[in-house]
Amino acid sequence: MGIARAWVSMSLDGFITGPKDDHENPMGINGELLHDWMFSSDRDAVEQDSTNQMFTATGAIVMGRRMFDLGISPWGNQNPFAFPVFVATHRPREPFESPDKPPMTFVESFAAAVAAARKAAGEADILIVGGASAIQQGLAEGVIDELHLAIVPILLGSGRSLFSPGELCGMKFELTQTLPTPAATHLILHPQR
Amino acid sequence: MGIARAWVSMSLDGFITGPKDDHENPMGINGELLHDWMFSSDRDAVEQDSTNQMFTATGAIVMGRRMFDLGISPWGNQNPFAFPVFVATHRPREPFESPDKPPMTFVESFAAAVAAARKAAGEADILIVGGASAIQQGLAEGVIDELHLAIVPILLGSGRSLFSPGELCGMKFELTQTLPTPAATHLILHPQR
Repeated sequence: MGIARAWVSMSLDGFITGPKDDHENPMGINGELLHDWMFSSDRDAVEQDSTNQMFTATGAIVMGRRMFDLGISPWGNQNPFAFPVFVATHRPREPFESPDKPPMTFVESFAAAVAAARKAAGEADILIVGGASAIQQGLAEGVIDELHLAIVPILLGSGRSLFSPGELCGMKFELTQTLPTPAATHLILHPQR
Repeated sequence: MGIARAWVSMSLDGFITGPKDDHENPMGINGELLHDWMFSSDRDAVEQDSTNQMFTATGAIVMGRRMFDLGISPWGNQNPFAFPVFVATHRPREPFESPDKPPMTFVESFAAAVAAARKAAGEADILIVGGASAIQQGLAEGVIDELHLAIVPILLGSGRSLFSPGELCGMKFELTQTLPTPAATHLILHPQR
């Protein structure tokens, strides 16, 4: 069995979307700035290699329902990943299928999404891509082995907090690698149990 | 005139103290972990050089009243810095003097503390060491030229937030240097005006 990894971009003030995220503006006000490093023409080569390696090691994806609901239209009504996606939701629905893409399947809980993703991934790793509540739950339940956090040097002022106040009080991480780039600081963190 | 620099350690979830900071426990629950990197026996040499250079360039310190009130007892009832300190406060008091240490002087506002520190520093830089409200005010008013942020890989759950929600919405920083160490990630940030 591979590891479970979470991967997310966060502002200096701890937000993974800007304020007022909705269907019109899925990342919230200024939230798209969190991903500028990913689409930059002078993207850091070391970081890009590292991210490519992460995807090479991945076999399946977990995400929360809100992320699916807000993301699917900007993703062009297709699974944006080259892997089967398992969406944790309390509102069941049929699998989302799109041409030439792996399916996105809806399962009844975060734990069930993790279990289904592990099964689909086989020996490969699973990747939890958000939103905040999926990552918080993964950390709180000890599911996440590794957190790739891209800290972007902006303040969003409000939005969705990656770390909900109180929930994960006192958790320590081993910081095993830092990939410094001007556009974002990439931290590879392992929760200490 | 030198620059105005802020210097502070923050948890991954954005706190510069842990919960329940008071005279008994000035850094709050687990808050002392924010400064472990500074007192570590295997402190990173590059980071230490950089911090030493920062202090060499400094001529005076600005801090908020709460930081003084909570800090002075753990600091051994002495100015913990080798520089004159200007404490921004709405509650006037006599200067705090201690043997062989520069005085700590109380002035009526953050702006007045910055002005007095600049005068005392001459051509040298001034250093704003906290608390959160002094740094927030310095950023909001465009006073701070450079922010040295040590991000410590822990979650404190609650405490004093470095960046108050909403206040500094949309601010971008130029990240000019990253000093990665296992104990903390040191970012040198310049607010973009």
